[in-house]
Amino acid sequence: MFQPVYLDHNATTPLDPAVLAAMMPWLENQFGNASSRHEYGRAARRAIDEARQQVATAVNAHPTEVVFTSGGSEANNLFLKGAAASLKPSGIALSVIEHPCILKPAAQLARQGWQIQSVTVDGAGSVDFSSFTDALAYKPQLFSFMMANNETGVIQDVAKLASAARATGGWFHSDAVQALGKLAINFRALNAAGVHALTLSAHKAYGPKGAAALILDKRVELQPLIAGGGHERGLRSGTENVAAIVGFGVAAELAAKRLAEQTEQLAKWRESLECGIVALGGQVFGTDAPRLANTSYFAFADIDGETLVGKLDRAGFAVASGAACSSANPEASHVLRAMSVPSEMARGAVRVSLGRANSQSQIDEFINALQATIKNLQGLTAIAA
Amino acid sequence: MFQPVYLDHNATTPLDPAVLAAMMPWLENQFGNASSRHEYGRAARRAIDEARQQVATAVNAHPTEVVFTSGGSEANNLFLKGAAASLKPSGIALSVIEHPCILKPAAQLARQGWQIQSVTVDGAGSVDFSSFTDALAYKPQLFSFMMANNETGVIQDVAKLASAARATGGWFHSDAVQALGKLAINFRALNAAGVHALTLSAHKAYGPKGAAALILDKRVELQPLIAGGGHERGLRSGTENVAAIVGFGVAAELAAKRLAEQTEQLAKWRESLECGIVALGGQVFGTDAPRLANTSYFAFADIDGETLVGKLDRAGFAVASGAACSSANPEASHVLRAMSVPSEMARGAVRVSLGRANSQSQIDEFINALQATIKNLQGLTAIAA
Repeated sequence: MFQPVYLDHNATTPLDPAVLAAMMPWLENQFGNASSRHEYGRAARRAIDEARQQVATAVNAHPTEVVFTSGGSEANNLFLKGAAASLKPSGIALSVIEHPCILKPAAQLARQGWQIQSVTVDGAGSVDFSSFTDALAYKPQLFSFMMANNETGVIQDVAKLASAARATGGWFHSDAVQALGKLAINFRALNAAGVHALTLSAHKAYGPKGAAALILDKRVELQPLIAGGGHERGLRSGTENVAAIVGFGVAAELAAKRLAEQTEQLAKWRESLECGIVALGGQVFGTDAPRLANTSYFAFADIDGETLVGKLDRAGFAVASGAACSSANPEASHVLRAMSVPSEMARGAVRVSLGRANSQSQIDEFINALQATIKNLQGLTAIAA
Repeated sequence: MFQPVYLDHNATTPLDPAVLAAMMPWLENQFGNASSRHEYGRAARRAIDEARQQVATAVNAHPTEVVFTSGGSEANNLFLKGAAASLKPSGIALSVIEHPCILKPAAQLARQGWQIQSVTVDGAGSVDFSSFTDALAYKPQLFSFMMANNETGVIQDVAKLASAARATGGWFHSDAVQALGKLAINFRALNAAGVHALTLSAHKAYGPKGAAALILDKRVELQPLIAGGGHERGLRSGTENVAAIVGFGVAAELAAKRLAEQTEQLAKWRESLECGIVALGGQVFGTDAPRLANTSYFAFADIDGETLVGKLDRAGFAVASGAACSSANPEASHVLRAMSVPSEMARGAVRVSLGRANSQSQIDEFINALQATIKNLQGLTAIAA
């Protein structure tokens, strides 16, 4: 079977073979419900306990701080809505470049009387600290600022923001979905700086879809989004997806173990990739800010991003246009608009996000395909003009 | 490896080998995010579309009526809280024997101004129709009545209840988690009778943990519990768990196909099982009501259910005591209390729930083990007395 070159690791990643191997027994003979009080159930409970320890260790948290959910969107909604339900409506401070699974639940809360304090970013995609301090004047009781952006890969100084937010007494959350496996995450240190909660997701780090976690300071009072049998200390009811949770544990362990080596490799490939893009006349976004080593977000003048992605797909390369997670939405990226990128460039945005199974020869082939596609599209534009 | 005899299928079921086989490609090379606009993404989207059709066909619904969630608890919470968020607080009518993942979100809504109209059951475990009509006087705008009870297996006449509820103009939901694969489910017919929504779950019917659905009449307005990228027509955001959804599709198809044959087989085994239980002096609950063919819920006077389950586990038989899904809770079953079972009998409750891989010889062996265990425990009681 023909397998296109996969360059869309910020959208999702393949399962690491070691992760799949660890999951298999839980999809075969070890199928028990972890709440059952017989050997099938106890085995499942032990497996979940081990995975909880692995996830905690990977981000320097305590196992009792790990609340498993079905995905990052659920964990983000759980934090915002769960915390809001424990508080009187006041303010929620957010960056304007948060993922829709933060922006949309915040909009739902706004209809219940919460006020959104939107914090802007600069042209490089970094949170504007003066906009952030302006927001603090409203004394928001909830904060959510992502650790790294899914589109640009730009990394935020979450510890600095959380420290500055401390005087408000609010609860500070960071969506770290794009950070796991790409940045060192130290919840103990972040917590000391004032971060109360982090969202992690397995499938962005060679783990399975269907498992994620809210890492949560136990002083934060949350009402469950999914109430019922009382699983996850009453914060998330529902029969645990044992296989996915086991896979998440192994993926988190591997992510922490491989981080340094992998980051170095990805940075080399990305440098080579971006040299090629710039040589072809492309513009790369966010280069003036610290970025994830695997992410390159770029555009060519007068070339539509959707069209480019379609042509590259047919040429055997899987990349993303605009915001990958909401590709159903053909509007220009809200992240690039927030960075004041002109709309004619923003419409051209294409994201390459590298992963551990890529290679230098794939980068070279991609640049060749990109060159041919750009020439072809520019020729069509010239004819149409 | 020693595999105990599994007699706890209402807690969870093993994956059917055909289900696992269908899932495997989506755990291996076909790992794309279904929102991605390249071949990996399109393949995932096609697989989800097919699964949506399979689930819809299995319960005679339209594919656009299928809202995939991560589990039955999520689907139940989505219906209750999602519908409540579209309405002004009024009444919610529920049976007292609903699963905690209906009772708990209802209790959360009660703290937001909703009134709970609790409908009682008779001694056999059937909803008391006069209690139901009493509740209608309060004109509840939400209804939730399970199709079959997880503990007793007692089947409710949901169509009759929904028809009677019509004049209220309320939205009627039924938790059908224990019905899939055990009862014929015809959403079109139920919908015509006044049922607006059903909850299904894959892992109760030889499908995977991590996939479930709310089957939803599109006239019902729901606010999403998990808001974000706009997946599932905006009703449930989050990267789809492709492998689990694919498995759910196949499991639903198999459930419908095998229903008649399997029900006949399970009923025979259950009859043999209950003959044995009664011969040993046990009392079976719910026998005066229509019950799922696979479920037997029983107790022996003066024998603690937890103790019996533990002894049977060590003898190599996996069965449940009280409510399996919340076995963390050692209180007597709320279902048996609602049926006015004396607490000394309710404390003894043990559930056997049969599945397609069981056999007559396993039933015979179980009865032998039960006899030996009962004798042993009665002997201990006699010595202690």
